[in-house]
Amino acid sequence: MHPYRTHTCGQLRAEDEGQTVRLSGWVHRKRDHGNLLFIDLRDHYGITQCVIEAETPLFDATTAVRPESVVTITGRVVRRSPETINTNLATGTIEIRIADFHLESPAETLPMPVAVDQELGEEVRLRYRFLDLRREKPHQNIVFRSQVISSIRQRMVDAGFVEFQTPILTASSPEGARDYLVPSRNHPGKFYALPQAPQQFKQLLMASGFDRYFQIAPCFRDEDARADRSPGEFYQLDFEMAFVTQDDVFNTIEPVLAGVFDEFGGDRAVTPPPFPRIAFDDSMLKYGTDKPDLRNPLVIADVSDAFRDSSFGLFARGVAQGKVVRAIPATGAAAKPRAFFDKLNEWAREQGAGGLGYIVFAEGEVKGPIGKNLEAERVAAIKERLGVKDGDAVFFVCLAQAQAEKFAGVVRERLCDELGLREEGAFRFCWIVDFPMFERNEDTGQIEFSHNPFSMPQGGLEALTSCDPLEIKAFQYDIICNGVELSSGAIRNHRPDVMVKAFEIAGYGADEVERRFGGLFHAFQFGAPPHGGSAPGIDRIVMLLADERNIREVIAFPMNQQAQDLLMGAPAEVEPKRLKELHIRLDLPAAKKPSVSTSTIASSGAASGQPPQDA
Amino acid sequence: MHPYRTHTCGQLRAEDEGQTVRLSGWVHRKRDHGNLLFIDLRDHYGITQCVIEAETPLFDATTAVRPESVVTITGRVVRRSPETINTNLATGTIEIRIADFHLESPAETLPMPVAVDQELGEEVRLRYRFLDLRREKPHQNIVFRSQVISSIRQRMVDAGFVEFQTPILTASSPEGARDYLVPSRNHPGKFYALPQAPQQFKQLLMASGFDRYFQIAPCFRDEDARADRSPGEFYQLDFEMAFVTQDDVFNTIEPVLAGVFDEFGGDRAVTPPPFPRIAFDDSMLKYGTDKPDLRNPLVIADVSDAFRDSSFGLFARGVAQGKVVRAIPATGAAAKPRAFFDKLNEWAREQGAGGLGYIVFAEGEVKGPIGKNLEAERVAAIKERLGVKDGDAVFFVCLAQAQAEKFAGVVRERLCDELGLREEGAFRFCWIVDFPMFERNEDTGQIEFSHNPFSMPQGGLEALTSCDPLEIKAFQYDIICNGVELSSGAIRNHRPDVMVKAFEIAGYGADEVERRFGGLFHAFQFGAPPHGGSAPGIDRIVMLLADERNIREVIAFPMNQQAQDLLMGAPAEVEPKRLKELHIRLDLPAAKKPSVSTSTIASSGAASGQPPQDA
Repeated sequence: MHPYRTHTCGQLRAEDEGQTVRLSGWVHRKRDHGNLLFIDLRDHYGITQCVIEAETPLFDATTAVRPESVVTITGRVVRRSPETINTNLATGTIEIRIADFHLESPAETLPMPVAVDQELGEEVRLRYRFLDLRREKPHQNIVFRSQVISSIRQRMVDAGFVEFQTPILTASSPEGARDYLVPSRNHPGKFYALPQAPQQFKQLLMASGFDRYFQIAPCFRDEDARADRSPGEFYQLDFEMAFVTQDDVFNTIEPVLAGVFDEFGGDRAVTPPPFPRIAFDDSMLKYGTDKPDLRNPLVIADVSDAFRDSSFGLFARGVAQGKVVRAIPATGAAAKPRAFFDKLNEWAREQGAGGLGYIVFAEGEVKGPIGKNLEAERVAAIKERLGVKDGDAVFFVCLAQAQAEKFAGVVRERLCDELGLREEGAFRFCWIVDFPMFERNEDTGQIEFSHNPFSMPQGGLEALTSCDPLEIKAFQYDIICNGVELSSGAIRNHRPDVMVKAFEIAGYGADEVERRFGGLFHAFQFGAPPHGGSAPGIDRIVMLLADERNIREVIAFPMNQQAQDLLMGAPAEVEPKRLKELHIRLDLPAAKKPSVSTSTIASSGAASGQPPQDA
Repeated sequence: MHPYRTHTCGQLRAEDEGQTVRLSGWVHRKRDHGNLLFIDLRDHYGITQCVIEAETPLFDATTAVRPESVVTITGRVVRRSPETINTNLATGTIEIRIADFHLESPAETLPMPVAVDQELGEEVRLRYRFLDLRREKPHQNIVFRSQVISSIRQRMVDAGFVEFQTPILTASSPEGARDYLVPSRNHPGKFYALPQAPQQFKQLLMASGFDRYFQIAPCFRDEDARADRSPGEFYQLDFEMAFVTQDDVFNTIEPVLAGVFDEFGGDRAVTPPPFPRIAFDDSMLKYGTDKPDLRNPLVIADVSDAFRDSSFGLFARGVAQGKVVRAIPATGAAAKPRAFFDKLNEWAREQGAGGLGYIVFAEGEVKGPIGKNLEAERVAAIKERLGVKDGDAVFFVCLAQAQAEKFAGVVRERLCDELGLREEGAFRFCWIVDFPMFERNEDTGQIEFSHNPFSMPQGGLEALTSCDPLEIKAFQYDIICNGVELSSGAIRNHRPDVMVKAFEIAGYGADEVERRFGGLFHAFQFGAPPHGGSAPGIDRIVMLLADERNIREVIAFPMNQQAQDLLMGAPAEVEPKRLKELHIRLDLPAAKKPSVSTSTIASSGAASGQPPQDA
């Protein structure tokens, strides 16, 4: 007989009755019935009930075992009597009569419960992550993550993509967030950087003649944690395709995403491809954000015209001053009491928006401060424009365009929640497209890149030389699911001449292109294909599918929000001789220097010319 | 029509005749026949011949295009005449009559050829890796690598393994090679380390109740490059299993490895599972190494007894002094001229072995210095012991055991090559098992761990408390293919009590276990399953399968031997304010300080209390 197990703890069924089996696992729960002791034995695959009678010699040892100890149990499979069958367990029709019991590894008294589902603090959970991961939900989340990634991989391979591994020790990235740096031992004074994304490498692979690249890529950003961003490292489905248009990218990746969300989303509905494609300007108008949650059915409209020279003086004056009026429908809000409207108005004042006007379309009657003052035909026009019916209301924001867009978007979300309008059990995808290539910095008046300087401007070189830069759109796009940005992406600028011109518009010389993107800029001078791609965030996808609100719930060993690994003790002090080898010394903040914990290391800072001794 | 392509360059066949198609790709080769210009257009999928006649208006533009420019060609598919069919190309029965030609991206004059297969220096290849990877063999190698990894993954999933991602920013590893360090911005004076392997994490996953873990894991060691080791990073098939014996590990991974080698090894034979399992002591005796190449049929034997008190005085005296005599058979060597033996003897002297005795078993006759001097019955016994026949020879080494083993192993390999005995077209696997747990340090006389202090000693606690430590074997094993170590592995020591005792034998207190392996040691006090695994090197597996001798041939963007990325310019200097943010400053070797390239950074070393300004 195998020393540890003939079956897993999730395997035995009624038809195994009579067999002598051996199981190993963790003592999940013990229940002492005086004459009988029940042990629920748990492994990765399930739980099996084991039982021993008080008169048997092993009873004392079995009774003494602490929860979460690892034990091996040998015994006969017996059918449970009908009234003791546990339909919650796959193995619930049988139990094991313990004939032999071996303690493989005793557990100390636990600092946190494993078998009981209860809320626990993050600190204890991360410090004892090996216990936390034995708990049902965290355990399942990590297996779920693995299954999702495995499915994504298979779908990408089936779509003709080739998976690559790109370097992790690489050069500092010229854009975006802060890099993690790695001092070089062989090259004094020089540093590697961990990749914020394999952006340049995937583009180099396109220039190397590969056609469809992907990677479940570890990415590194030295940024502070947020609920949807793990400090340190995260994973993305990084992909890139040669000889494609923006639509080719969408058509290729939509079935992968929709397929994964269908497969792992349970009963939840998924936007069928093709996903809606919404121009950035439209998104800002209709949803007040470039990350619209399309489960929210409310659509904002511009109604500035309806107020121009109208009898509602406040907005008429606003429009005359160049402000805009945005209307947010509130389906079914007419039935709400006056307090509902007052509360929203109050909230809007707190937000600094100066209040929130509204019209209520009650049964054949128009109410609310604006409804009363605005000309009836203008009210009717607004009603028609927004497609609202009697029983609905409309809220209004009158501000400068950028603030109006943004605040209307906030109101739209608030109304959706207040009115309970959000579609439940659904994943709603869309693409945001036609982002502006350039924008004017309001402080300096300078024209700057809006997003990625490496995206292809729509219209190419001709647009750059003949159009108002602020009118030029980029082949740049975001994919949004339920208001969460999964990724941005772009058709890349593969033409050195177009690149130089784009940088010139943003006030840089060709030397700046060379300095910041030398590797790519150089490569593109030797024949580069048109190409594009994107990089949906894996952790975010899993978080959405697992219905978790904190990204750390879908990562096996996350750091805490202070970017510490409490289990392994990272980051940690290192021996001075290691720093010497790396040609660096510490340069600690003044307040820290006298502390005991850093005194050993501080000594290596002395410029004595002698390498400090290893303790 | 799609702006770039209706088909790939590997797709069109005779039955597509008459279609108007569009292809995009790189200008692989141009052949100017005066009245006709042929362009071989290449993409990831293949090559298609395109042709244009001199009288067409596009002829000049087409003629002017430089090799490796990216172009889009539109035209009609025509069948080639029978005498111009190219059977080396999948598309060789057709060609495209160019009707439209668009230059997507011109190529500068190339610093290295792409279309011609020739030997190139590593520097130019890595600096222009995007050109190098367009070449047939490098391109294929990277795709091949991807296919191998994809197959390994699928086989692991099919065997019930779950893939995990373990942290890359983690704690310094207490064993093995030098870590790469990453300074922490939030925790002054502290550092993350990049994992040398996910060893502790995979063991923690076992303690977390997962059952079969794997990962195609990036690993990092700050070590110098070798032909079979890339500087910086490498990948391993990291796996671990709970509730297993050593045989369970072997039985699980053998079909994965044999399957992958069968699938990608072409015609080459693969050892069918179960692979031979050779005890370490046996391997040292029979092959003179713990990495035996079993394609070499020669097996060393100990023949000390045959020389004890014999008439061959030199060896008799050696044996009396405690030396051993090892005999290496040389199949078919009797036919070799005297010079063959003299040359080997000379080589052995150069190696410091004092020469190489031999017996030649010619047709019914015994020759050679030893053959002449040793008693006939002893010669006969040696012949029988080694299983050699007339026509063979036997070489002898008489040295202290460790040197005798090692040198006999070298002789065995040399004889195999000289006699052309190595099996061709085969992958021969074996496990080396039963490694000693401890060894005596010859300098200090101390008992030390032979290999991994975290392996389970055979016999457990009882062996540690009752046996001579030098006699204790560990459940530690290596997997070898064709003399290449793919990985070591072990059944781990999951018992804190056994761990403390093992460290005590090696002269350490429990605090040392705590200090060096705190995370694991702590976790194992809360119920840990027996577990074990291994981690075959992915790059080495691909290297063997691709029949490449340099590991950089199977990595998309390898660093050079000086751990530099010539394409991206890594490692590089960083701005002083970045170092300040990381609480470090440079500590350069004296000779470097005055150099211009470091002067900016050196200024940050001034302890002025003011953060240096960003240039």
